[in-house]
Amino acid sequence: MSDSSPKASLPAWLTQVSHMVDAVLDALMPSGGTAPQALHTAMRYSVFPGGKRLRPALAVAAFEAVCGPRAIPDAVPGDRHALAIRAGAAVELIHCYSLIHDDLPCMDDDDMRRGRPSCHRAYGEAIALLAGDALLTLAFESLALAELVEAAGTRQAGLLVGELARAAGSLGMAGGQALELAISGQPWSGRLCEAEDAVQRMESMKTGRLFEAAARMGGIVGGASDPEMDELSQFARHFGLAFQIRDDLEDAVGQDAQSGRITAVSVWGPEGARHRFDSSVAEARRCADSFGQAGSKLRDLLNLISFA
Amino acid sequence: MSDSSPKASLPAWLTQVSHMVDAVLDALMPSGGTAPQALHTAMRYSVFPGGKRLRPALAVAAFEAVCGPRAIPDAVPGDRHALAIRAGAAVELIHCYSLIHDDLPCMDDDDMRRGRPSCHRAYGEAIALLAGDALLTLAFESLALAELVEAAGTRQAGLLVGELARAAGSLGMAGGQALELAISGQPWSGRLCEAEDAVQRMESMKTGRLFEAAARMGGIVGGASDPEMDELSQFARHFGLAFQIRDDLEDAVGQDAQSGRITAVSVWGPEGARHRFDSSVAEARRCADSFGQAGSKLRDLLNLISFA
Repeated sequence: MSDSSPKASLPAWLTQVSHMVDAVLDALMPSGGTAPQALHTAMRYSVFPGGKRLRPALAVAAFEAVCGPRAIPDAVPGDRHALAIRAGAAVELIHCYSLIHDDLPCMDDDDMRRGRPSCHRAYGEAIALLAGDALLTLAFESLALAELVEAAGTRQAGLLVGELARAAGSLGMAGGQALELAISGQPWSGRLCEAEDAVQRMESMKTGRLFEAAARMGGIVGGASDPEMDELSQFARHFGLAFQIRDDLEDAVGQDAQSGRITAVSVWGPEGARHRFDSSVAEARRCADSFGQAGSKLRDLLNLISFA
Repeated sequence: MSDSSPKASLPAWLTQVSHMVDAVLDALMPSGGTAPQALHTAMRYSVFPGGKRLRPALAVAAFEAVCGPRAIPDAVPGDRHALAIRAGAAVELIHCYSLIHDDLPCMDDDDMRRGRPSCHRAYGEAIALLAGDALLTLAFESLALAELVEAAGTRQAGLLVGELARAAGSLGMAGGQALELAISGQPWSGRLCEAEDAVQRMESMKTGRLFEAAARMGGIVGGASDPEMDELSQFARHFGLAFQIRDDLEDAVGQDAQSGRITAVSVWGPEGARHRFDSSVAEARRCADSFGQAGSKLRDLLNLISFA
């Protein structure tokens, strides 16, 4: 399921979160007219317009699972809900940087992204490389802003930085990308279970860790207990896997099938993949339910990626 | 002056700092045998062996300018000198990532780095791209380690992250790279002073900001006052400019002259560049002297880049 696929009835809160995240991102990034202009324009091109902003939504949903549902207030500095939005915005910056670098010729070599030319096609490879680097850097800068450090308390800013860095690094998202390079194009001569393991490990790192970071960062802002953090982690892992399988199922009739790319569908077949999708969603739902009524936004996100 | 040019009499403390930084970097990075192996091997290839580790040395020199000279102890967790080493290591990771991405075909397209094949020549472009991304990410992870957050106190971890992120981002090092792209290859039809301004702005962002971050981070760990932070910033800016001019003067007989790359020498000529080098060193020395005896390591670094 691509981030930009339309959905008939998006919960109102999702749209509100998206707007608030966009406002934070707009305030964080220098204007396109700020030197160097090409770099800042390319950064903005890659961040706006966004997709559904699923990762910030997960941060907010996790925050509320811990703190209880509340009307989304104006972003008042120091307000912990606003901090959850900021944490989500940081995760979104990591996501946006990863899309730029993923599309580069030396990686997936994609000319199009969300219906428009990819960043390097629009601005050249060098600026796209730097734009990705700058967005990655900005994600961490955004978590170190003075008011965040003051408002979040002694440990939180450091904890948020740590969560996001581990999720994005060589044992997280970047590592997952490298694993995908290693397993792609391999002849399928091994045992099926090895291919399954490799795909699951790769996807959980490449996609799942960032979802997990979003949920955990929302939990950290909400002051989650260790058991609550575990439930949020588990929710995010199952959610992330379901998200990726759904993506693969939708692409299965498209070019991925012909390209021989290793996906959930190419390993398990469409029925097997659907079965795993269903069980991942069921597991995630169990985690959301552990929060009772407060888990409602987590359940909303599951409904978002479920089949009608 | 390249980072690997030999120097007859390196102060002992510089070698000690280099060893301590190497130990920190070795502990931070997953082993080359940790999956994904190609990624971790490429990261280590790009970090070891290091150059003179000038940036961590500057962090330590700045720390001691504020706290007073002391024998370099074993890295005891919580010891503020060890924190200065860790801060320097984070800056070094940013430096190493920037070298990988700078060498890529879409950027400077360099096959060699420090006498060996550049990272993308050794491991391929995709792994080199990811290795740079992962080192950049690790730099921030290293500042968020729990013991750092605990030891450094309420605000320091966030301040260190903020300093480094701003220095590395679109208004710092990455921005300087983008500015260099914008001004390189331009016909020199403008006025000389415009070219001078452009070069200085570009170099101060591309190279100077990271030196400035190293010095400021050392100051932060040392609990520097605002006037002390200003002196450290000024030292680093002048030191960074002198460093870059020296680099340009050494390259002036090499390929940069033929390539038409805009450098201090191409803008000011060798005599003009040497004049500016001398005045930058003099300004930096004044800043170091403002710390009295405690500025001795800052003075050592100036001697390191001075002409015999």
